[in-house]
Amino acid sequence: LRNGYPEVIYCAGKTTDQVAAIVKRMLELDYSNILATRANSDVARALQALTPNVEYSTTARIAVINRKPLPQPAGTIAVVTGGTSDMPVAEEAAITAEIMGNNVKRIYDVGVAGLHRLLSHLDEIMSANVVIAVAGMEGALASVVGGLVDKPVIAVPTSVGYGANFHGLAALLSMLNSCASGVAVVNIDNGFGAGYMASMINHM
Amino acid sequence: LRNGYPEVIYCAGKTTDQVAAIVKRMLELDYSNILATRANSDVARALQALTPNVEYSTTARIAVINRKPLPQPAGTIAVVTGGTSDMPVAEEAAITAEIMGNNVKRIYDVGVAGLHRLLSHLDEIMSANVVIAVAGMEGALASVVGGLVDKPVIAVPTSVGYGANFHGLAALLSMLNSCASGVAVVNIDNGFGAGYMASMINHM
Amino acid sequence: LRNGYPEVIYCAGKTTDQVAAIVKRMLELDYSNILATRANSDVARALQALTPNVEYSTTARIAVINRKPLPQPAGTIAVVTGGTSDMPVAEEAAITAEIMGNNVKRIYDVGVAGLHRLLSHLDEIMSANVVIAVAGMEGALASVVGGLVDKPVIAVPTSVGYGANFHGLAALLSMLNSCASGVAVVNIDNGFGAGYMASMINHM
Amino acid sequence: LRNGYPEVIYCAGKTTDQVAAIVKRMLELDYSNILATRANSDVARALQALTPNVEYSTTARIAVINRKPLPQPAGTIAVVTGGTSDMPVAEEAAITAEIMGNNVKRIYDVGVAGLHRLLSHLDEIMSANVVIAVAGMEGALASVVGGLVDKPVIAVPTSVGYGANFHGLAALLSMLNSCASGVAVVNIDNGFGAGYMASMINHM
Amino acid sequence: LRNGYPEVIYCAGKTTDQVAAIVKRMLELDYSNILATRANSDVARALQALTPNVEYSTTARIAVINRKPLPQPAGTIAVVTGGTSDMPVAEEAAITAEIMGNNVKRIYDVGVAGLHRLLSHLDEIMSANVVIAVAGMEGALASVVGGLVDKPVIAVPTSVGYGANFHGLAALLSMLNSCASGVAVVNIDNGFGAGYMASMINHM
Amino acid sequence: LRNGYPEVIYCAGKTTDQVAAIVKRMLELDYSNILATRANSDVARALQALTPNVEYSTTARIAVINRKPLPQPAGTIAVVTGGTSDMPVAEEAAITAEIMGNNVKRIYDVGVAGLHRLLSHLDEIMSANVVIAVAGMEGALASVVGGLVDKPVIAVPTSVGYGANFHGLAALLSMLNSCASGVAVVNIDNGFGAGYMASMINHM
Amino acid sequence: LRNGYPEVIYCAGKTTDQVAAIVKRMLELDYSNILATRANSDVARALQALTPNVEYSTTARIAVINRKPLPQPAGTIAVVTGGTSDMPVAEEAAITAEIMGNNVKRIYDVGVAGLHRLLSHLDEIMSANVVIAVAGMEGALASVVGGLVDKPVIAVPTSVGYGANFHGLAALLSMLNSCASGVAVVNIDNGFGAGYMASMINHM
Amino acid sequence: LRNGYPEVIYCAGKTTDQVAAIVKRMLELDYSNILATRANSDVARALQALTPNVEYSTTARIAVINRKPLPQPAGTIAVVTGGTSDMPVAEEAAITAEIMGNNVKRIYDVGVAGLHRLLSHLDEIMSANVVIAVAGMEGALASVVGGLVDKPVIAVPTSVGYGANFHGLAALLSMLNSCASGVAVVNIDNGFGAGYMASMINHM
Ligand SMILES: Nc1ncnc2c1ncn2[C@@H]1O[C@H](COP(=O)(O)O)[C@@H](O)[C@H]1O
Ligand SMILES: Nc1ncnc2c1ncn2[C@@H]1O[C@H](COP(=O)(O)O)[C@@H](O)[C@H]1O
Ligand SMILES: Nc1ncnc2c1ncn2[C@@H]1O[C@H](COP(=O)(O)O)[C@@H](O)[C@H]1O
Ligand SMILES: Nc1ncnc2c1ncn2[C@@H]1O[C@H](COP(=O)(O)O)[C@@H](O)[C@H]1O
Ligand SMILES: [Mg+2]
Ligand SMILES: [Mg+2]
Ligand SMILES: [Mg+2]
Ligand SMILES: [Mg+2]
Ligand SMILES: [Mg+2]
Ligand SMILES: [Mg+2]
Ligand SMILES: [Mg+2]
Ligand SMILES: [Mg+2]
Repeated sequence: LRNGYPEVIYCAGKTTDQVAAIVKRMLELDYSNILATRANSDVARALQALTPNVEYSTTARIAVINRKPLPQPAGTIAVVTGGTSDMPVAEEAAITAEIMGNNVKRIYDVGVAGLHRLLSHLDEIMSANVVIAVAGMEGALASVVGGLVDKPVIAVPTSVGYGANFHGLAALLSMLNSCASGVAVVNIDNGFGAGYMASMINHM
Repeated sequence: LRNGYPEVIYCAGKTTDQVAAIVKRMLELDYSNILATRANSDVARALQALTPNVEYSTTARIAVINRKPLPQPAGTIAVVTGGTSDMPVAEEAAITAEIMGNNVKRIYDVGVAGLHRLLSHLDEIMSANVVIAVAGMEGALASVVGGLVDKPVIAVPTSVGYGANFHGLAALLSMLNSCASGVAVVNIDNGFGAGYMASMINHM
Repeated sequence: LRNGYPEVIYCAGKTTDQVAAIVKRMLELDYSNILATRANSDVARALQALTPNVEYSTTARIAVINRKPLPQPAGTIAVVTGGTSDMPVAEEAAITAEIMGNNVKRIYDVGVAGLHRLLSHLDEIMSANVVIAVAGMEGALASVVGGLVDKPVIAVPTSVGYGANFHGLAALLSMLNSCASGVAVVNIDNGFGAGYMASMINHM
Repeated sequence: LRNGYPEVIYCAGKTTDQVAAIVKRMLELDYSNILATRANSDVARALQALTPNVEYSTTARIAVINRKPLPQPAGTIAVVTGGTSDMPVAEEAAITAEIMGNNVKRIYDVGVAGLHRLLSHLDEIMSANVVIAVAGMEGALASVVGGLVDKPVIAVPTSVGYGANFHGLAALLSMLNSCASGVAVVNIDNGFGAGYMASMINHM
Repeated sequence: LRNGYPEVIYCAGKTTDQVAAIVKRMLELDYSNILATRANSDVARALQALTPNVEYSTTARIAVINRKPLPQPAGTIAVVTGGTSDMPVAEEAAITAEIMGNNVKRIYDVGVAGLHRLLSHLDEIMSANVVIAVAGMEGALASVVGGLVDKPVIAVPTSVGYGANFHGLAALLSMLNSCASGVAVVNIDNGFGAGYMASMINHM
Repeated sequence: LRNGYPEVIYCAGKTTDQVAAIVKRMLELDYSNILATRANSDVARALQALTPNVEYSTTARIAVINRKPLPQPAGTIAVVTGGTSDMPVAEEAAITAEIMGNNVKRIYDVGVAGLHRLLSHLDEIMSANVVIAVAGMEGALASVVGGLVDKPVIAVPTSVGYGANFHGLAALLSMLNSCASGVAVVNIDNGFGAGYMASMINHM
Repeated sequence: LRNGYPEVIYCAGKTTDQVAAIVKRMLELDYSNILATRANSDVARALQALTPNVEYSTTARIAVINRKPLPQPAGTIAVVTGGTSDMPVAEEAAITAEIMGNNVKRIYDVGVAGLHRLLSHLDEIMSANVVIAVAGMEGALASVVGGLVDKPVIAVPTSVGYGANFHGLAALLSMLNSCASGVAVVNIDNGFGAGYMASMINHM
Repeated sequence: LRNGYPEVIYCAGKTTDQVAAIVKRMLELDYSNILATRANSDVARALQALTPNVEYSTTARIAVINRKPLPQPAGTIAVVTGGTSDMPVAEEAAITAEIMGNNVKRIYDVGVAGLHRLLSHLDEIMSANVVIAVAGMEGALASVVGGLVDKPVIAVPTSVGYGANFHGLAALLSMLNSCASGVAVVNIDNGFGAGYMASMINHM
């Protein structure tokens, strides 16, 4: 068991029974900080039947089992979103970062269509060690944040949108072509990956 | 001949001789404000051999023949670009708008990676009647400008960029998915179409 | 609160409770002309439980709350569709324009496969200040209308169609490549964006 | 040798020598009505060195060798284009149809952005037995023609255009989604295929 | 009412009530040969409540109302499919052609993976005036049939398949690139369009 | 040095000097059966300056250096192409297979538009141990061959074609969706890979 | 009935009744080794009502009817997967290969993110005659396995993943571009095709 | 001038004169560590005419002007490539990281088709603070490296490859879907962006 790294189960494409069996075995081995991502409420209930030590986030669809707080580095990770519909992805990132031992600041719904909202949180964002920028639609948030801050930005395109959004492709291409330096991108809706990467960086 | 509308020849895919022949006929009919778009320097020279009244922009690849200034409405059109590489498209838009009788303000190289530059021109942009936002790469400029101003924004994606830009697709999708209201989009690199549309709006 | 601009809530991806909470707060602040777009009948009922001042369009999936008529400019906005299946998008555009203080003329089901129908409404269309052209399938309507009228045309591709339509892509590309000048495009199915842009132009 | 069908050599991707060798053999076998499509001027010259009976169209890039007029059915084939840049494809179709024994009417540059031009040729188009509609950009011509005439329409998308045209994809999708009945589509720029199909139909 | 042409209602995207209302009006006007395509069984029942003269095909999802046989030309139309899953599209084509007054031969499940099956029906196929080739997966049937017969082939790609089929795209591209001459293509799953086009040709 | 496997240098994206240096080193180590693929004539000349033992195929763009015939298994590999333009890819496959110690039968230009040609070579094809089917345009050859033979078919889509071929995409998708069993696919234009795979199978 | 080849019914897109009817007829003809792929549990039950000789795999969605073991060649086929979610496709491949008379080794969940797991099974994989590599997400498994083994690798991309995976496209492209030699690819999720091809090779 | 950050000029799409003018101004302001990326040899010569302090890398197409070494953190950055053709992108990354004050280790041509080569450099790679993984074709390197190391991996897809590689799309999608955690991606061929991001992380 690598130090500081959670045990992660990606539940999509696994049956509730399969997930429960995996967690049961981990509990027998006395694992802590187990993370079940993309877990629906059925899975959550099955896990709660195994142990009382389950915290489930309906928004993030993450269950945290046997949380054991880890020492946190001084720096913080800011999770910034364009809109409220990006929250499931943002929370997946935030909870992943928290369980890996990070202090996380959530700054939601500050998309570029209302720049003043973003600018009013600038101090908070700029004081972070790493920024996770979560946005759907045109994903411009990553470029604007990347242009403002001097720290690594992990951009997460989300599938929020419709029509020529093509399920997140618009935001993905937008973020990959960011004219700001210091921006790297993870898969569409991959909050877990962003939180993991940000934690790695914050612990350096 | 519609009042205030230029005669336009789209030169791409026409031979120099074909373009010259069309202009010759127009000159015989005493047309003014003829616009030859996507004209290379060969075409320009051929037209200059026909008449001294040719103004050619190497950047915009536009030749204006027999310019006859038209009365201008009070309002102005702002042409804003993300970078200097967007200038050919921006100039195509600006010259088109000018020949259709508009006062044009050029505000170039104010992309969102350096937001202060854009904000320092905010008054100028906000005082315009219509804004043409020209940007390649991730095209975030259109959303930021659209969020700041209260006037119609015509967004022009450009093919500036590489890789996952896919020849302007990234900026196009980005602009179509803009989270700001009051943004409509024309084809990739279509400066002419943006200038024309903006003029129509400015003359209302 | 900007003068003449509605407060807009995009309901897709929000729970009924979230939408109701947002509207409740707005009502407490005495907002008028609140627009809830992409609202299903559940949302509509929840809003009607908050206040009697809710008008809900099943077709457009829009709820208008606390309508307060605004002064209208002389010019009208024509909303033209290719078929009857485009009506949800067209109504979203029309109702948006109306709530922003515009006189709207609806001219539906005049697609180019039966050109006589379109031509028989030509006077009505040409007398408008701005035209919103809504079409799915091949989206040719925008080009034909753009070629006939001398006013700005806002083209809205719809996802009506099947097969090589690719959920509106065919109409979108078609409209972006329109050989008519004076046509700008919004996202697939984005009736709201088209109505908003048209209103901006009509108020100039 | 099938009666009434030309021998066709598709020159793209063959060397001049290869094409000349193929034609030489055909000449030895006394073939008539040989068609070399996508032939550049080098190929044309090489063929003219073999026999004086070569007619070469620079526009269509077709060489016709040993033309032997065939009896023509009463009906005509109309070839209609949106713009002048579609002429190479249109001529490929027209010459193919002619060599297969058809009376061809050319009606060029009548795109839908200027509907009056198209309508002023309506009688001519409607009196044809088959219509070949050739158009690039948004390809709306096929739908408008398909809606007006009562005869089979063969639609040929061309690669004329730029940006979101994606080398003819916009016109192709547009034509495949035509809301008019009686329209079938061939490959982008495939004038030969359209002429061949139209001739087959005209000879029924 | 054009002679020999059915009245067609495309039911997808219309409510059962809307379809019933349209048909009711047509019945009052004494229309015959009404075709309701993409009609589910609800629609069929609603129509049967209006009149006993409804024939409904579950496979083709077509309802024919007030069938009135038309004189048929001597020639036949062959409808050929690659597999049994292509039958809904094939039947849409066949029934459309029949109601327009054509003698239709159905030759199903003769895909190219078992060439002998196709070749054993060759006489039947070659004796037809027009061939409709319906195929999903890789759509090779259209090329093989087009190479064998000397008559116009209308190719209909279907969405049958999975994975890199991309909902019919594979068959569509395959058919558009057919190396056989005399093949033209309609939209994915567009049996109606193929039947209509084939009838037009068969009546020439 | 694995027994029976050639040393392969993929020359695309390497300078002539780089390739020559690599081969020089191999010659010093006394390697035989060196294969330089995607080698232009400059590269060929540079290699011929190093050693007389270079056989260069202009068509296949392959240079074979220090050929040392290997023992051949009893079975043969048939390389079948749709057209003559597929020959560069087919020859790359054939020469690769030959240098790996295989007896190769070339059966070119037997595309499905003229099925008799293919069928007249059926014995030859069916007697092979492995078949490599090379085709551009719609790539139907792979399905027809796969349906006829009882042996593994390696399908190679080529970039031969234009328009909706999209540089080989049409043939690639077609081959991946083949309704015949026993067909596997390599990259567009990857003759080398097909020859290598076929040799592996033939040596089992 | 070809010796050693199963009779296969692809159930997707067929009704339960259609599948049952086909199998009934086969049973009357005394067929053995019938394979019903993509069969849901309804289909399985319907088949079990016809005969007791049905083995149904819920994971692979395959029903085997009248299994009659065939003689097996000495060589084995290894089926390797990246993750547990790839199991349905892997089992489809494995069961297909088994029914065709092969000894199959299953090596599941050895994806490249934990290379040690893959390497710990290396002996087993290298001793196989053919390897089937089944992977979703980025499909890197095929390249790594292809680089390690000296035997033909059949790569099967799966649709496991989300976002920029685009339903298996990422793994498909990855496998087609494999930098390892000796890798050929079948359609996304096409376990049956891979098992069939591998068996063909293993029987050579 | 931000401390430790280079001044960067992206030369693609700028004329040699434009680049020279920009650098001239910077030299007058006494800037150091100026980076001109995507600079061809013409640009390099023009800069060398301005100042002797120009180092130009033909491979990376980068000119470094007025290099002024910066203090370096203890940690190193490893730049790993799949093949030698990825070197231009890798060198762009390496030189960018070096000028920003980092100790860079180059580990080239260790693609996954020959896993032993990669594994033989494992110590070197694992001792780095950040890894930049540069690969074209199927881009599997990023996943394999990401699975082996415990540090942030910046993945750079390159456009090396052909056919279904689609100019780097295959590697891009592959890297975005990496099954290894701790991998983030930059644009195709964006060595600069990767070097910049890695430096940011290494300086934390
Ligand atoms: N939400 C997520 N998105 C992407 N990858 C994930 C996610 N959750 C977990 N993973 C990855 O999936 C691995 C577990 O996959 P599995 O063994 O299939 O449960 C973890 O080690 C993570 O690298
Ligand atoms: N740069 C341009 N991009 C797009 N459309 C253009 C451009 N320049 C001219 N046009 C349009 O092309 C028409 C002239 O086309 P043509 O008759 O082919 O010369 C004009 O009426 C404009 O609508
Ligand atoms: N299945 C179909 N696929 C494509 N077009 C159809 C289909 N059925 C009917 N149509 C077309 O749709 C038109 C009727 O559309 P609507 O007025 O919306 O009912 C007819 O005139 C046909 O051209
Ligand atoms: N024409 C080709 N297409 C695809 N892969 C090739 C080709 N020629 C060689 N290769 C592969 O490229 C490897 C050599 O690449 P390199 O080391 O860059 O020269 C060989 O081992 C083959 O696997
Ligand atoms: Mg930054
Ligand atoms: Mg705005
Ligand atoms: Mg107009
Ligand atoms: Mg018609
Ligand atoms: Mg034929
Ligand atoms: Mg076979
Ligand atoms: Mg291998
Ligand atoms: Mg890692």
